[in-house]
Amino acid sequence: MDLSTVVGIVAAFALMIVAIMSGGSLMLFIDPASMMIVLGGTIGATLVHYPFRSVFGAMAVFKKTVFHQETAPQAIIGQLIQFAGKARKEGILALESFLDEVKDPFFQKALQMAVDGQEAEAMKEMLDKEIEYIQERHESGADIFIAMGSYAPAMGMIGTLIGLVQMLQSMSDPSSIGPAMAVALLTTFYGSVIANILCLPIAGKLKNRSGEEILSKTLIAEGMRCVLAGENPRLMEQKLHTFVAPKLRESNFKK
Amino acid sequence: MDLSTVVGIVAAFALMIVAIMSGGSLMLFIDPASMMIVLGGTIGATLVHYPFRSVFGAMAVFKKTVFHQETAPQAIIGQLIQFAGKARKEGILALESFLDEVKDPFFQKALQMAVDGQEAEAMKEMLDKEIEYIQERHESGADIFIAMGSYAPAMGMIGTLIGLVQMLQSMSDPSSIGPAMAVALLTTFYGSVIANILCLPIAGKLKNRSGEEILSKTLIAEGMRCVLAGENPRLMEQKLHTFVAPKLRESNFKK
Amino acid sequence: MDLSTVVGIVAAFALMIVAIMSGGSLMLFIDPASMMIVLGGTIGATLVHYPFRSVFGAMAVFKKTVFHQETAPQAIIGQLIQFAGKARKEGILALESFLDEVKDPFFQKALQMAVDGQEAEAMKEMLDKEIEYIQERHESGADIFIAMGSYAPAMGMIGTLIGLVQMLQSMSDPSSIGPAMAVALLTTFYGSVIANILCLPIAGKLKNRSGEEILSKTLIAEGMRCVLAGENPRLMEQKLHTFVAPKLRESNFKK
Amino acid sequence: MDLSTVVGIVAAFALMIVAIMSGGSLMLFIDPASMMIVLGGTIGATLVHYPFRSVFGAMAVFKKTVFHQETAPQAIIGQLIQFAGKARKEGILALESFLDEVKDPFFQKALQMAVDGQEAEAMKEMLDKEIEYIQERHESGADIFIAMGSYAPAMGMIGTLIGLVQMLQSMSDPSSIGPAMAVALLTTFYGSVIANILCLPIAGKLKNRSGEEILSKTLIAEGMRCVLAGENPRLMEQKLHTFVAPKLRESNFKK
Amino acid sequence: MDLSTVVGIVAAFALMIVAIMSGGSLMLFIDPASMMIVLGGTIGATLVHYPFRSVFGAMAVFKKTVFHQETAPQAIIGQLIQFAGKARKEGILALESFLDEVKDPFFQKALQMAVDGQEAEAMKEMLDKEIEYIQERHESGADIFIAMGSYAPAMGMIGTLIGLVQMLQSMSDPSSIGPAMAVALLTTFYGSVIANILCLPIAGKLKNRSGEEILSKTLIAEGMRCVLAGENPRLMEQKLHTFVAPKLRESNFKK
Repeated sequence: MDLSTVVGIVAAFALMIVAIMSGGSLMLFIDPASMMIVLGGTIGATLVHYPFRSVFGAMAVFKKTVFHQETAPQAIIGQLIQFAGKARKEGILALESFLDEVKDPFFQKALQMAVDGQEAEAMKEMLDKEIEYIQERHESGADIFIAMGSYAPAMGMIGTLIGLVQMLQSMSDPSSIGPAMAVALLTTFYGSVIANILCLPIAGKLKNRSGEEILSKTLIAEGMRCVLAGENPRLMEQKLHTFVAPKLRESNFKK
Repeated sequence: MDLSTVVGIVAAFALMIVAIMSGGSLMLFIDPASMMIVLGGTIGATLVHYPFRSVFGAMAVFKKTVFHQETAPQAIIGQLIQFAGKARKEGILALESFLDEVKDPFFQKALQMAVDGQEAEAMKEMLDKEIEYIQERHESGADIFIAMGSYAPAMGMIGTLIGLVQMLQSMSDPSSIGPAMAVALLTTFYGSVIANILCLPIAGKLKNRSGEEILSKTLIAEGMRCVLAGENPRLMEQKLHTFVAPKLRESNFKK
Repeated sequence: MDLSTVVGIVAAFALMIVAIMSGGSLMLFIDPASMMIVLGGTIGATLVHYPFRSVFGAMAVFKKTVFHQETAPQAIIGQLIQFAGKARKEGILALESFLDEVKDPFFQKALQMAVDGQEAEAMKEMLDKEIEYIQERHESGADIFIAMGSYAPAMGMIGTLIGLVQMLQSMSDPSSIGPAMAVALLTTFYGSVIANILCLPIAGKLKNRSGEEILSKTLIAEGMRCVLAGENPRLMEQKLHTFVAPKLRESNFKK
Repeated sequence: MDLSTVVGIVAAFALMIVAIMSGGSLMLFIDPASMMIVLGGTIGATLVHYPFRSVFGAMAVFKKTVFHQETAPQAIIGQLIQFAGKARKEGILALESFLDEVKDPFFQKALQMAVDGQEAEAMKEMLDKEIEYIQERHESGADIFIAMGSYAPAMGMIGTLIGLVQMLQSMSDPSSIGPAMAVALLTTFYGSVIANILCLPIAGKLKNRSGEEILSKTLIAEGMRCVLAGENPRLMEQKLHTFVAPKLRESNFKK
Repeated sequence: MDLSTVVGIVAAFALMIVAIMSGGSLMLFIDPASMMIVLGGTIGATLVHYPFRSVFGAMAVFKKTVFHQETAPQAIIGQLIQFAGKARKEGILALESFLDEVKDPFFQKALQMAVDGQEAEAMKEMLDKEIEYIQERHESGADIFIAMGSYAPAMGMIGTLIGLVQMLQSMSDPSSIGPAMAVALLTTFYGSVIANILCLPIAGKLKNRSGEEILSKTLIAEGMRCVLAGENPRLMEQKLHTFVAPKLRESNFKK
């Protein structure tokens, strides 16, 4: 699970709630009609902008991003070295025994292809196409959250304008002006919170995670190509190490 | 028909109307003079920016985008495989019988060219030129909506400034200040609604749809080139499948 | 003349004047001192940004853009085909009789070069350099209007701040607050109108027109090269048609 | 001297002062404490952003830009043609007599290199490196003014917030509210003036001037290369003319 | 230590404190609850956007940037020339005596590689990979400060909205409105200060420093390659001088 996302959202909301409650009741900030207009309007504008399946897909991508545990690159390199050694000693078919051990579906697919007798270059090409498609899906997901982050404050302002116009039209009772204006400002508040605590930071996280996932998938694709091509495990390790930061480069071989 | 566009616009406006009516009369938000200045000013600025035919063309492109039903890529691949099989068995001329079956005018044109005896590469080149022109027209359409989405809020602000100046010049009757200011804010409200619920999301949708349409047209152009070149239907399917997402790759051949 | 520019500006200003007059006197919105500070400040900042000759050049480019009537690409292609036919039958020198017929100075220059016995490639190169220079001048013109469109609202805000500070310093007579604030807001109003109805849309139109002019000049340069090279008129037409949209491709030859 | 910069700044400030004085005393707009917070804060933020020497360097680049008189490209071409003629008749060493005549230090350096017996290509390479470094220094200067143009309005707003908070905390005497708020608005006014009349337009001018200076330096470098290579003066003129606009292309030879 | 960063921050804050204290008590501007909501919300949103290790890494990069003293390029070139002379006379192994003299860990690592008998090209490649990774880490650090600089003002506005809503809901006591609104504005003030005096300028400085560090590391990598390749020290100096500005090019050889 991506802890920092959860910690960040919880911390920001908790701080906001504490700040609100230290100054009065939390109920003053909960107005279902205002929430409806901001949330509904934002989703409406997003649906005009994107087709249904992209909008729902973005939510799925976000959920997967938060809960998916990426394998560390060093661990992947370790496994690939192990596969290379096994394949050189006992042949490619011997890799079948690892199929259950590997958790990542992309890695499993690559392994299955290898066991099925696919050629090195053909497998690499198909895996690369797949990576490209994953990357595109990630980017499109981030773009949708960015769009929502720009529509939400606009809807907040529209809601506030509605409240102001209604308040200004009926100023007979001066004592009602304050509360009416308070309610009018709530939509701006909601729009700003949705955009700056949820949508825009989530879009940023999706982009960051995409980079990591693409890296580890590229590592798997390149590594499995080396395994199928029967390359020397030591040289293969050196090649794969160029993908990771120097301080993460732990050799699997004793010098 | 592009459902999400219609659903999004209807939902956003319905929510807004419900929110307005829960707080007072809808009539407070309808002011023909204010609408005139925002809509008219936006169209005026857009005409200064773009020539007449581009502005009218953008509306046509939008209408076509909403009502046009794009054929799914899998269905197009299915048809192309069918054509390839027929052409290999009975010759290119046998494709004439499909001319009525195909609905998409671009596909029809490609088929007609094939039946007319055009060569594979020459046909591909002409179809590619056509695709390029369609793409440019789409992009220009989206750009016009983006321009309108930036002029509308500006016109809204100009209208509000007019209202404020008039109100401030005649503040003898304090009870008239509220309603006058309410009316002045209406133009800002209109400008914001036009930009954020209509123009900007529509521009986004045009860009998204353009991508899909270009993809399916490219699929047709590449597929018809394969048909004319007499390529093996199975290899041709593999080639065309690289254009679509993995989960949409259903083979037309039994393994 | 570029009708849409004139129609757009007239329509936007007419609407604004009607809206103003329906709510009070137009004179409330005319304040020479406020106009002076916004217009003068905008021109001042633009002169700091650009040298004199660029600023005056931008005005000339705009005037020419509005009044210049671009020849339709089809008509240019028609003429070029005619020249090619004549040149093949009677020799390049026979083109001299067309020198008076051609109105566009760029086309005249190209024709003169041809008649003077310039070689095809050398003429093409010199015309291309000239096109490049025209394009650069257009772009620089559009950039100046964009700069003015960003300085005008800033000057408007500066003017409003001046008015507000003066008003706030002398609030002894409450009845004077309204009118003083109304006048202060006028500069913001002027800045917004100058930017959004004049400068920014004009910058957009200059960019659009530049594209068209460059296209027709490129058509002339390529066409004259074909004429000098003595290419087949039918093939030349096919080549030139790739520059225009499919629906504008009318052949000059009967099939 | 770059007249339009001086005229623009003087005109904008003069207009502003006239506008202020027509509405009251100029002294209302002079508040040393407010100036200190905006100017000091802007310089502070700029020093956090850039090292000392870059900030001071930017001021020097600006001063040089305003007072430096660029030689017209035509005059440079004329001189280069003259040098080429002399060098062909009397040898490269004869150019030594021109060393005092040439004012531009870059031109002098190029001439000195030629007289010192440097080879054509080696000299060109060293001059190009020098041009590259000049361009980088110019760009960095423009970037610093852009940064200052974004920090100044922010500091203005911070100053206004300070004034507002202080005013709101002590509203016991209603008659003091107006003047206190007037003073609070002054920082926003200063920030806006510094950004929009000074920093941003100056950054633009630096970019424009850099383009001109780079052009004339490139002209010198290419021209001196031709001189050293002993090229034909007429061909050399044609080559150098491609650097300047057509209407500035005056031949130094009688046809 | 990077003096201008420290001077800039201290100057900006000192000016602000002086300005505040000249108008009242500094305590009016210190509100722990408001600080908590702005700082906490900004960190929360940043954690949603970036993983934990990147956020902590950014702080470390900043601290290192402020306190790290970059060696001047001329000094580095001088040392490299010295190494080259020694290596040519006494062999590569003689460089071991310099290992303690060199302070920069990157330079030490390069020297160690040379002494260990690494080949010139292989060492260059590994050092380049390392430089690339350093650059990426720097850029990611700057991006995090830019993100914080955009979230801080948003959190400030959210805090002000909370304060306004609470104030408007309880306007029974008019005398409490001023102070309540003053407190509400404090979050906007904090957000603006954090963004414009800390986050954004620091992001700019990180980018500037990154450029310098990358330059000096590239100089070391290229220079050590020359040393290992046994190049002529004079030619090597000429090559390395192209990395620095002309006025910093002091030769280590007497002419």
